[in-house]
Amino acid sequence: MGGKKAKLKKLKKKVSKLKKELKGFETSQSAPEISPLAPSGGFPNLPVIQGVEFSTAQAGVKYAGRDDVMLAKAIAGSTVAGVFTRSSTRSAPVLDCQNKLKKPLPTDMPVAILVNSGNSNAFTGAKGDGSVQAICTAVSKQVGTATDCVFTASTGVIGEPLPHDRIVAQISQLNATLSKDKIKAAAGAIMTTDTFEKGASASVVLDGKTTHIAGIAKGSGMIAPDMATMLVYIFTDATVEQSVLQTMLSDLNERSFNAITVDSDTSTSDSVMVIATGQNGGSKITDASSTQGKAFAAALGDVMRELAHLVVKDGEGATKFVAINVTGAASNMSARTIALSVANSPLVKTALAGEDPNWGRVVMAVGKSGEHADRDKMTIYFGDILVAENGWVSPNYTESAGVSYMKNAELSISVDVGVGPGLATVWTCDLTHQYITINADYRS
Amino acid sequence: MGGKKAKLKKLKKKVSKLKKELKGFETSQSAPEISPLAPSGGFPNLPVIQGVEFSTAQAGVKYAGRDDVMLAKAIAGSTVAGVFTRSSTRSAPVLDCQNKLKKPLPTDMPVAILVNSGNSNAFTGAKGDGSVQAICTAVSKQVGTATDCVFTASTGVIGEPLPHDRIVAQISQLNATLSKDKIKAAAGAIMTTDTFEKGASASVVLDGKTTHIAGIAKGSGMIAPDMATMLVYIFTDATVEQSVLQTMLSDLNERSFNAITVDSDTSTSDSVMVIATGQNGGSKITDASSTQGKAFAAALGDVMRELAHLVVKDGEGATKFVAINVTGAASNMSARTIALSVANSPLVKTALAGEDPNWGRVVMAVGKSGEHADRDKMTIYFGDILVAENGWVSPNYTESAGVSYMKNAELSISVDVGVGPGLATVWTCDLTHQYITINADYRS
Repeated sequence: MGGKKAKLKKLKKKVSKLKKELKGFETSQSAPEISPLAPSGGFPNLPVIQGVEFSTAQAGVKYAGRDDVMLAKAIAGSTVAGVFTRSSTRSAPVLDCQNKLKKPLPTDMPVAILVNSGNSNAFTGAKGDGSVQAICTAVSKQVGTATDCVFTASTGVIGEPLPHDRIVAQISQLNATLSKDKIKAAAGAIMTTDTFEKGASASVVLDGKTTHIAGIAKGSGMIAPDMATMLVYIFTDATVEQSVLQTMLSDLNERSFNAITVDSDTSTSDSVMVIATGQNGGSKITDASSTQGKAFAAALGDVMRELAHLVVKDGEGATKFVAINVTGAASNMSARTIALSVANSPLVKTALAGEDPNWGRVVMAVGKSGEHADRDKMTIYFGDILVAENGWVSPNYTESAGVSYMKNAELSISVDVGVGPGLATVWTCDLTHQYITINADYRS
Repeated sequence: MGGKKAKLKKLKKKVSKLKKELKGFETSQSAPEISPLAPSGGFPNLPVIQGVEFSTAQAGVKYAGRDDVMLAKAIAGSTVAGVFTRSSTRSAPVLDCQNKLKKPLPTDMPVAILVNSGNSNAFTGAKGDGSVQAICTAVSKQVGTATDCVFTASTGVIGEPLPHDRIVAQISQLNATLSKDKIKAAAGAIMTTDTFEKGASASVVLDGKTTHIAGIAKGSGMIAPDMATMLVYIFTDATVEQSVLQTMLSDLNERSFNAITVDSDTSTSDSVMVIATGQNGGSKITDASSTQGKAFAAALGDVMRELAHLVVKDGEGATKFVAINVTGAASNMSARTIALSVANSPLVKTALAGEDPNWGRVVMAVGKSGEHADRDKMTIYFGDILVAENGWVSPNYTESAGVSYMKNAELSISVDVGVGPGLATVWTCDLTHQYITINADYRS
């Protein structure tokens, strides 16, 4: 009997050990509910923007049991600026928004933005254009504005006709429930594979008037047409001329949303819009290079950069948030190309995932960029740690210092390529098993 | 007691079940010994090339218990052509080879090629140049040729000084054991993370003389500087003028080794060389556009394309070999850019890994390429299956047909972008968990 008892004990131990191992495997395979890089404080307290109201509803386009449509309404006289995906296969809503922004909007009518999640209305041919028309017409009627003042976006599966009737059926209800306080709900309704709502704000005193900026974003790949388009809406009570707002947005976009990459893939629907209601009581900004213009642009830039970072931090499978700083390049453009080459390199990204201070892969990615770099003057830093200089590993660098640094969740890699004054920063995340699991293991 | 017995039985069953589950996980994680895409027949029977001999040895540069150096010697009067990585951080051996090919080689001296695996001698500063000098001097003495006729390559870890003394110590032995029959051993000695030796051959009648071409290659990422540089050596008994051989190689390279991508990463050491011994007894090819020139180039192109395919088939973690055909582009260059955009898209590559006929991701990748494409005239085929046409999914396409097709190990995706006569084909593989495991989970 003693033998049996001992055997039982041994087997119990084995089961417990095997269970533990299995748990380890399963944990490494399963998706986290919320990105480990999400801000610990949750969704921020965003200021109310005078002149803007939000509402959300369940249209059931694809998701059940959650809000999947949002309406934002901005007061008549608001100025609107937008930047959109450069994809040659861009979606019907993007083409419609771009057309509407080509000419001045009527100044006596409110502006409306209608976004649905679950279906991207991309690569849907002429039917897609019809869906956009149907939604814009319905919104313009309910909200009481011209169709030219209605902007839409759709995010979700590609190539399936958008069941726009389900959205149209909700518009009366959406219009009836508009409120200044619903920006968090709006951030939630536009999510697809996002694991948390993204918001950011700033305030700035212009002409003696405190001016607020509040923005929301969605996006978690860079960015699949399936489910992970990036959409950004920023609202402010600033008073800004449309052309000035557009110039600021296009300019700041290069150093925020156009300076992030999760997987180098670009959505057919990416949209970033800024709406300024002019309710701050200040005088109109008519010159981007004026004192007021610069102050406003700086605050707007802060909000855009923060939202851009949040998109990377919700990158599919991301466990590391990484800034790639390039200096010493032939030009800023060249620095940007080098930074993107490093940020998009699968070998750099897998090294980050493995917490491997593999500076050789950084050298490789700089080399393959096609840009001018002086191999023998190149300097590489991981954070503050000098890793390589003068074309070789630094004599003071130790592998253990590199290994220890790579354990941080937020990292920076800085490369000076030794040929000129050009510089750029790009933000990215690592490439993990979880990215493969999200995009390969389960069919949409 | 009965209760204990039952408990014991139950626990035993549980252990067996847990063991099975664990095994499943482990199998999905562990590297296959040989790529599932490796040719079923093993290494081909390559013809002996008159005028070329090979030998291999264990220098112990990094690997123990296997040959890691190879010497190839070609008869005096051979012509040599080469193409190399465009990386701006290229290795010392690559720079040395490029310099030597700038001027005509002496015609009365043999040509030697010395390759080591385990250390890439890249990003090693002035020490790296010294290692190349030391090896070339030792080889020239033993083989009895000028240092200008000695070409080297190194593949393996980056940034570590090459212990060239270990290689130099083997050169006398290498020279003493040269043989016409050792090309397979040579293919093995240059391997790093490769899972199988790669060889290909062709023969062609030129001027009434049967002419042979035999080549070997290594490479399995595209291509990490760590361990997976691509190296290719092709030998032929054809009689060809050097400038003609160089032109043919550069031209054919665009449609073979420059038309493959595993992970979009480019090595600091990639080298492709062709050595023609002139031993076929035919008259010299002095014009690439002559009948003989065209016939030879066609055969050389076959060997190059086959070797290029083998490199992709040994791609890290690859389970699918995929041809991306683009037609209807504005130019051939534009078609190539679009094909590479599809081939390098992580979302396309993970869809391939998941056997997901996700044509939406193909549309996305075409759109993000920055090249001109007509969304509403675009056509997409998976193999012979018409998937999308006129800017939307084809009415005859069924998801089940797509799913069934994607189960094949060799796939083709053909996209007509509807704007012009440009065309290009690029070959790639899928992006799997195994790629992440190889490059992230284990530190080098």
